[in-house]
Amino acid sequence: MSIEPPFLLFLGDASDPLSAKTAFGLYHWRPNDCLGQYRLPGCKITLGLPDRTPLEAKLLGASTLVLGLANSGGVLSDKWVPAIVEAIEAGLDIASGLHQELNSVDTIREAAAKYNRILHDVRRPSRFFSTGKGAWREGKRLLTVGTDCSIGKNYTALAIEREMKGRGFDVDYRATGQTGILISGNGVPLDAVPVDFVSGAAEWLSPEADDNHWDVIEGQASLFHPSYAGLTLGLIHGSQPDAFVVCHEPGRKTMRGVDYPLPSLENVISEVTKVGQLTNPRTTCIGLSINTSKMSDPRARSYLDRLAREFRIPAVDPMRFGCEEIVDQIESCFPKRKAP
Amino acid sequence: MSIEPPFLLFLGDASDPLSAKTAFGLYHWRPNDCLGQYRLPGCKITLGLPDRTPLEAKLLGASTLVLGLANSGGVLSDKWVPAIVEAIEAGLDIASGLHQELNSVDTIREAAAKYNRILHDVRRPSRFFSTGKGAWREGKRLLTVGTDCSIGKNYTALAIEREMKGRGFDVDYRATGQTGILISGNGVPLDAVPVDFVSGAAEWLSPEADDNHWDVIEGQASLFHPSYAGLTLGLIHGSQPDAFVVCHEPGRKTMRGVDYPLPSLENVISEVTKVGQLTNPRTTCIGLSINTSKMSDPRARSYLDRLAREFRIPAVDPMRFGCEEIVDQIESCFPKRKAP
Repeated sequence: MSIEPPFLLFLGDASDPLSAKTAFGLYHWRPNDCLGQYRLPGCKITLGLPDRTPLEAKLLGASTLVLGLANSGGVLSDKWVPAIVEAIEAGLDIASGLHQELNSVDTIREAAAKYNRILHDVRRPSRFFSTGKGAWREGKRLLTVGTDCSIGKNYTALAIEREMKGRGFDVDYRATGQTGILISGNGVPLDAVPVDFVSGAAEWLSPEADDNHWDVIEGQASLFHPSYAGLTLGLIHGSQPDAFVVCHEPGRKTMRGVDYPLPSLENVISEVTKVGQLTNPRTTCIGLSINTSKMSDPRARSYLDRLAREFRIPAVDPMRFGCEEIVDQIESCFPKRKAP
Repeated sequence: MSIEPPFLLFLGDASDPLSAKTAFGLYHWRPNDCLGQYRLPGCKITLGLPDRTPLEAKLLGASTLVLGLANSGGVLSDKWVPAIVEAIEAGLDIASGLHQELNSVDTIREAAAKYNRILHDVRRPSRFFSTGKGAWREGKRLLTVGTDCSIGKNYTALAIEREMKGRGFDVDYRATGQTGILISGNGVPLDAVPVDFVSGAAEWLSPEADDNHWDVIEGQASLFHPSYAGLTLGLIHGSQPDAFVVCHEPGRKTMRGVDYPLPSLENVISEVTKVGQLTNPRTTCIGLSINTSKMSDPRARSYLDRLAREFRIPAVDPMRFGCEEIVDQIESCFPKRKAP
């Protein structure tokens, strides 16, 4: 898959930053490839990028309009179609992370054919997978998990990969969702894989490797989310993580999209450990990644310190204070083996 | 979906009864619709039905060749293709429960077009689903779960439904796999649903109903199977069972297709209860369904008695001794509410 930058990020009529997490993620991790945002009337959020029409963006060099939206069910809203067609007519390719395929909409498909533009559906798995084998694979794997959806699993994985790369680790980030795939240019849109093959897809994504090699795998959903827990469980089993990091946002009252309370950190750690032991008996929680953006600096620091003492593992906010302590923990729990 | 009987059951080159569980199930539950079996050289199993070629079966009135096979990954073997084409040429429709679609094979697709025959892929979901909502629904639900795949979850559900019907319950059997769909004529091939929608599909399949209505839902896989546990978890969450029955086959050494031991009944009961409580806090194990086919009658009786005493719930072999005690348990745990 090669989706050509620079990007114009489409925010549609989004009213909630979480529903545009793909746009936020792409801009955060590839800022130099994003040259504007395109919003519809009623849109209540901003990336802080200049507002551009597709034609303006094209004249500035943009190649692709990215649908930066992630709604429940991944449906393409009728309200967005005219804007997408407008972008095609302006000469842009389209990239979408929605479940519903771009070419399922007649006017989009016809415009793309007429103007010879490419429609990228990054959430359509591009291959078939085997069922999971549950067999042991050499190499090290870190998985991010969370108390909820949209709670920092992808940012945490990307931050840890960046820090590990900086320290000279042999490490690969493995995207499992549309945002991560758009950021890194590859991966598996795991939530769109037929459930029979989800752990097999996770095995394929993090294959056998050298004993000192790390895959840092983007987590999905939550073992405690009534809509998506099957995805999380299949990912845990297939990725057989040696280490996992629990992501959380204090103050969030209910899980995303449903009227359920968030599970406690204790419950997540103990249940992920328990189910993870099925395919990796040594799986262990090596850190907590907390979104402290709603706290003052001193309050965030003291909150993280308290968690670190309570759970006896590093507690970080990778976006605010970095994630050095988590990579320290990796170095201390998993000393590199020297070549014989 | 209307797949026309009578059926000729295709066993291919199967060497293991479990790999032909669809054929066995269809013949067991719809014997009057099955008029023969069609086997390739090397096939080591039999249903006890007469062997017929497609042409012989057609002359006897058969309408559909059913691929009664269920291999890991649901792949259509090259070895079966000539036999399928032969059946099409003889004037039969084809019904398949494999993941791989019949029309993905050129020669099959072309033969069906030429001879104007229907290709039924019962494992292709025929609709889109919403994501699970986790919301409470009126009505009662019973789910079968198991220590492994292919261990009696479907037969147990069908036997319980039959016994409940006999006692005048308002009850529906809900198929979640290819065999159940072929037997009952409807249902959702849950393992082929994109994982994001698996609990939503289970919710759709067992909708809100009258308080005295029961859905008896065919279980899938096992919470402890490294290949498929995500499917089981999504089904548990979506079906929010009031009651569940654990299916087991004593003496089975490893889980189907992988080198993993089976979990204990205790572990299955406690873990299904725990994860099930997320969407139904009152979920409870009301019985054990044991495949005792490898035991003598007295040994089977004493084994079931011992389990019933140990777990303080009925333990039955529905195929051998019926499942009256389980339905007794349903009547005692869930007394019918009278209309006011």
